[in-house]
Formats: sequence, structure tokens, C-alpha cells
Amino acid sequence: MASSLDDLPPRTALVGIARDFHARGWMNGTAGNLSARADSEHFWITASGKSKGRLDEDDFLLVRVKDAAVVEKRRATDKPSAETSIHAALYRRFPEARAALHGHSVEGALAARRAKKGAKAMRLPSIEMVKGFDIWQQNPKVDLPLFENTLDVGRIAAEIEKRFKKALPALTALMIRGHGATVWGRGLQEAYNRFECLEFILSYMVHTRTR
Amino acid sequence: MASSLDDLPPRTALVGIARDFHARGWMNGTAGNLSARADSEHFWITASGKSKGRLDEDDFLLVRVKDAAVVEKRRATDKPSAETSIHAALYRRFPEARAALHGHSVEGALAARRAKKGAKAMRLPSIEMVKGFDIWQQNPKVDLPLFENTLDVGRIAAEIEKRFKKALPALTALMIRGHGATVWGRGLQEAYNRFECLEFILSYMVHTRTR
Amino acid sequence: MASSLDDLPPRTALVGIARDFHARGWMNGTAGNLSARADSEHFWITASGKSKGRLDEDDFLLVRVKDAAVVEKRRATDKPSAETSIHAALYRRFPEARAALHGHSVEGALAARRAKKGAKAMRLPSIEMVKGFDIWQQNPKVDLPLFENTLDVGRIAAEIEKRFKKALPALTALMIRGHGATVWGRGLQEAYNRFECLEFILSYMVHTRTR
Amino acid sequence: MASSLDDLPPRTALVGIARDFHARGWMNGTAGNLSARADSEHFWITASGKSKGRLDEDDFLLVRVKDAAVVEKRRATDKPSAETSIHAALYRRFPEARAALHGHSVEGALAARRAKKGAKAMRLPSIEMVKGFDIWQQNPKVDLPLFENTLDVGRIAAEIEKRFKKALPALTALMIRGHGATVWGRGLQEAYNRFECLEFILSYMVHTRTR
Repeated sequence: MASSLDDLPPRTALVGIARDFHARGWMNGTAGNLSARADSEHFWITASGKSKGRLDEDDFLLVRVKDAAVVEKRRATDKPSAETSIHAALYRRFPEARAALHGHSVEGALAARRAKKGAKAMRLPSIEMVKGFDIWQQNPKVDLPLFENTLDVGRIAAEIEKRFKKALPALTALMIRGHGATVWGRGLQEAYNRFECLEFILSYMVHTRTR
Repeated sequence: MASSLDDLPPRTALVGIARDFHARGWMNGTAGNLSARADSEHFWITASGKSKGRLDEDDFLLVRVKDAAVVEKRRATDKPSAETSIHAALYRRFPEARAALHGHSVEGALAARRAKKGAKAMRLPSIEMVKGFDIWQQNPKVDLPLFENTLDVGRIAAEIEKRFKKALPALTALMIRGHGATVWGRGLQEAYNRFECLEFILSYMVHTRTR
Repeated sequence: MASSLDDLPPRTALVGIARDFHARGWMNGTAGNLSARADSEHFWITASGKSKGRLDEDDFLLVRVKDAAVVEKRRATDKPSAETSIHAALYRRFPEARAALHGHSVEGALAARRAKKGAKAMRLPSIEMVKGFDIWQQNPKVDLPLFENTLDVGRIAAEIEKRFKKALPALTALMIRGHGATVWGRGLQEAYNRFECLEFILSYMVHTRTR
Repeated sequence: MASSLDDLPPRTALVGIARDFHARGWMNGTAGNLSARADSEHFWITASGKSKGRLDEDDFLLVRVKDAAVVEKRRATDKPSAETSIHAALYRRFPEARAALHGHSVEGALAARRAKKGAKAMRLPSIEMVKGFDIWQQNPKVDLPLFENTLDVGRIAAEIEKRFKKALPALTALMIRGHGATVWGRGLQEAYNRFECLEFILSYMVHTRTR
């Protein structure tokens, strides 16, 4: 086994992550989308409408960072993920980001549901797992950026880009309420590791209300 | 790996789904039954009383859509699933349906338990996962048809057919209280994907009461 | 894949069940023990103190039903499960039983914890999954026999035998409080299937209090 | 399959445990660290910052028990786990210990959260699973030593060593609040088995509050 996902070709790594996250219940149905930079100006992203448990390396489209336009696809009928504009926005705002992963977990949905109406962030608990985001403080007060869900994904993407232009988030992660989390990283392994950390934290948050 | 369950022979796909759902705890004991159309007038359905973790391609009977009569079986002692009449009713009412999956989850049973006595439907939360049923609305108000359980499965089947003659449901899914969900689709992959979506939604519903 | 666990040599089947149940968290540590009849007067049972995730066919001892005496073992240092006397009692009381499986689940421990002090049974909910025990009633009122845990396993075995001499339970299953469930069946597959059914029901019971 | 983890070379066994625990959600992100004695004066410990789902035998450093100094590494850039000082302290205090496993579970974090401020221990419930720690009492009153988390791991290690010099714990396990459990054993298999037992108990504890 390669000791890091970054030792694999990007789409091979994404196929593995997709099967892994699907098996954990983080990508039910055709939910979720995954991307990795091909070069500074382009990224590979999953085709729309496919089960993440059955992807192969041809189920990705090459997309331009600048305008989210598709520049290459392997299957004529494939369309890029409906949330391609969000990935493009993240790659524009975070030049270091090389991978972005978006999934839906029951616990993420439940944790976000408890945020107040109009809230722009969810305060995370100061547990050890927060260090997975390279936050080395005694009792870190870290906020997960929160966005409202809407059918118009372009609007969410624009809101993400606008808000992150004002201030960079403490985490390389965000949550869309009623929808799911997106986590990015400087490499595929970092994005994968941090997605796991965020899901741990969200799961903890769901339970701290009653237990 | 075939990129879609629909690229496999129907019974091979159903065997794979059965093992997958069994492993997730959605088909404990011998619970659950799975079917796929063989042609417009017939469907394959699982034999009764077998662990869904150990099926093979011979554990299916060929049944007529019109009257649920068995027209072919591979093992002399096999009997069709006790719920064959429900599958037949669905294939009659939904000519486009090519597969139907019925399982039992703890969370489905818990979510249904909370519906009021006599309720004919469970209102689903308007979370993103509802889009898995091709529902593209901002805040969808979608109802999962609910049926009461009874020992007389034929009565449930008749009730399903009668109610769906009056009005088609918004979802290709239904719930039998104290029992489990059935999800159908225009293909095996669609039915599989939507079963996952429904389980996600049901799981979310169980937790929204207390958290 | 053999279509039934009963098509396999008994110890091979038990090894498979042990890995399966261990992976599901029903046999943590060295908890749990599994047995199958070798003939009407003997049964194979797991050796004491081994991880159920790593058993092989040599990790069983042959024990006499009549008095729970060991008559054969493959490894000189092996001792029979501490709960061998419970298995022997069950094989004496249920001549049809060909396999018995004992595990520990968090949800089983939680469900039993809620039974009143001194209670001799836990009333099960009348959900469809109860049919896994061949109970075909409209709203079955079924009791799971409950026994108090004690360090002296022989006393539990004696209590089981005594109580089942008075009246056969409706289920081929029992619960030891703070400890775990034992399920038996006329074959390995039946015991396996019913263990799954019972765990489903116990899990449901844990949640019906608050949800 | 080797019938015990102790039949494998220590690092091979640790690689297997790491994948197993990672798959169960006990080592999300790069969380967790695992060690095994190489000889009475040295132990192997995982390198820092790696996903526990992808370790190989070269991802370990050889460390001196006496002072936690690294004496050998396979990859020039590898650093020992940040918590190496805790492992060294345990090997000094427990000459019989041959393996130590540290992970993070959501349920462990939740259970520890409920301990009172300043508490030095968590009282465990007297369920059968406690016997996994070789505690053979009717209603055992066993305490899991509890330590406060801090960025300065050396301080935690010193506190562990100091407290265990005064009195040996009843369990070969401890909890760091907001962080996770560490379990050690006289062998790899014992440490693995007991980690499973502790996670079962912690999971049970989380639920006993509301159910």
C-alpha cells in the first residue's frame, strides 16, 4: 500500500476515497463530489449522478479553475458535479489547495441543524481532534464557516468566495446547512485526513446536547 | 467494477445489493426481499427464508407481474418471498419500475413509530438528500407513504395498489410501519441509490426529536 | 459461497460467525462463545480467552452434553469457554438445538439494564423482526427470558435449566443482564439469523425510550 | 491467520491493529499512536502525522524506554509520535507491558466529558465486559484513571508516571479528557483485546445517561 494518497495518480486516489466514504455512509445515493488539481489552472472533478461506491478513473471531468468550464471528459454523456462551482471557488481562493472533498453525513446534518438561524459559523468544541487542522492551541476557539443551502449552487459558490475574500477561515473546511461538509487540503491525504477529523468533531457535537 | 449495477445481469446485481445491505444491518435474519424485472411481464424475486448475506443467483424465482404466480424456479423447495404480492403491485402500478428493494432498519422502524396513529404518510425533512429522489425544490415538502403492518401481506399489497391508483407518490418509496421501507427505481442502480438516500433521511428523522 | 452455514463443517461455520460478529462489535475483547453439536451427545465449543476475530478450526474443544466434560482438545493448553455449562444446559433442554451463540452488544446491555429489578423477562416490541423467531401473530406479545449475571456461571446454567424445565420460552434466546444474549437454533444458519434478529430488536428497544 | 497477534513481528501486528482501529473510527485523521517493545530497553512507536489506515512496517521509530530518545528510524524525515513520552512513561512504570495503544473515539470523548471537573478517575459500570481486564469480582468497582489534556504532552507523561508511582491502577488503561484512551498489555493481543473492551464500556457509559 502506498504510504500516502499523494503517491497515487489523483483520480485513482479519489476513486479510493469515494469508495471509502461511501462505505462509511458519507456519500449515500449519488451524494458527494470530489476533486483534485491536475495543474495550477485545472482540476479533476467527479461526474454528476453516479454512486460513489462504483466510480472508476473515467468518471471525472477536467475543469478550469478560472471559470469552472469543462475542458475534457472521457464519457460524452457525463456532466460535471452540480457543485463544481464551489470547488472552483475554493481553488481560486486557496492556491495551495490540491484536493477538495464534499460529503453528506447524518451527523453533519444534525450538528448544522442546531446552529442558530442566520449564523455564519458553528463553534467547534475544543477537543484534541481539532489539531487535525494544524491548530495548536490550549483551548482553541475555532469556527466552522456555515452557509445556507439553496437550489442555486452558483449563489453558494459566490457567497463562499466573497466571504473568504474578507477573511480566511481558521479551518480548511466549511459546512452547508441541511446539506454537508466540504474539506480541502494541500494534498489528497491531508484533505482525506481532515474530512475524517471534521466528521469526528461533528459527531461529538451532535451528542453533547443530551449526554 | 461495472460502473453501474444495470450493467450486470439482474440477479447478479441483486446478489451484490443483498450482501451490501445485509452487511449494513438493513437485512438482518432473513428479513428483506429484492426483485428486478426480467421483462415487462415478469420479475425475479428472492426466495423466502434465506440470509441475504449468502444469496446466490439461483436463490430467485421468476414471477408473473399480472398475478404474482411463480413461473420458474431453480430449486424445487424454494418459495417466493412472502411479500411477492407487494412487488407485483408496484410493477403493475409503475410500468417504468425495473427493480424494488425492501429492507428493515432499526432507524426506519423508529422513525415510522413516531408517526401518528392512522397517519397515511410521514413528512420528510427538507434536507439535500431528498434530491436523490429527483425532487428539485427549494424547501420540498415531501411525504413518504405509510402503511400499517399486518400478517396478511395480500391486504397490504391491495392497499398499496389502491392508494397509488388514486395518486402517485412524490417518492418511489413507501414505509410499512413496524416493518420496513420499500424503494423502487427505473433501474437497479437507481433503486439502490434511493434506498441509501431514504435510509439517510430516516436516520436523520430519528435524531431530530432529541438533538 | 455455500448457500447455508449448515453446508459447512460446524467448526468452519463457527469460525466465520465469530469473525463476522467480532467485526460488528458483538464480541469485543475475548467476549462471547460459540458452539455447535458434533453429534447428539457432544458439541464443539470455543476455547476460553481468545479473540473471536482470530479463531481457527483448532480453537474448539469437544464437550459432552450430559455433564459438560471435555472429551477432546486440539491444543493442550486450551480450556473450554467459562460458559460451557450454559451451552450444555441448553443442549440438554432443547434436543433439536444444533448451535448456540453468545455475544455481548452495547445495545443488548443497555436494553437489559432497563428491565426492572428481579424481572424474569423482557417484553419485546411487536415489530416485524420478531417473525425471525417463527412467531406468526398479528401483535405478538413475546418475552425474552432474563437472568441475573453472577460470577458463578454454573449457577446461571442451573437457573436456565430449571426455569426452562417448567416452561419453554417463546424464543430460542435468552438474556443475561449486564452481560449478553445467547441464541440457539436447529441449525447454524438459524442460530446466526436469529442472533441478528435479536440484536435488531434490542437496538430498537434502546431507542424507543427517548425517540 | 495467526491465532494471536503475538505470533507476528511486532510492527506487522501494529500495522494490522492500526488499519483495524482506523476502520472502526478510533483513529481518524492522523490521530492515535501505537507502540510495542522491541526489547526491555526499547520500543517501536508510530511516526507522527500519518493516517493509521495506510501505515507500513517502515512507519515506526525505535525509541529508548529510559529517556524516549529515538535510536533508529527507517525514513529520514520521520518524527516519533508527539505522545512518545507517554508510552515511555508507561513502559517504565509497567515492566510487564509489551504494547500500548492510544486512540480517539467519539464515545470515549463523550464519556470523559461527563466526569466532574478535576476528577482523577471515571468509575466504570460493573458490566461483564470489565472482566476483559482480568477483574473477577461480583460487582466490581473499578476506576479508569483520568488525566486532563494539555498541549504540553511531556506534562501529561510526567503526571501519569507520578500518579502511577503512588498506586497502580486496577486497569491497564487510562483516559485523557477531550482526547482519548490509552490501553496497554502484556502482549499485543492483550492490549488489542482490552482496547476493544474499554471502547465497549465507554460506549455503554455514554448511553446510560439518557436510556
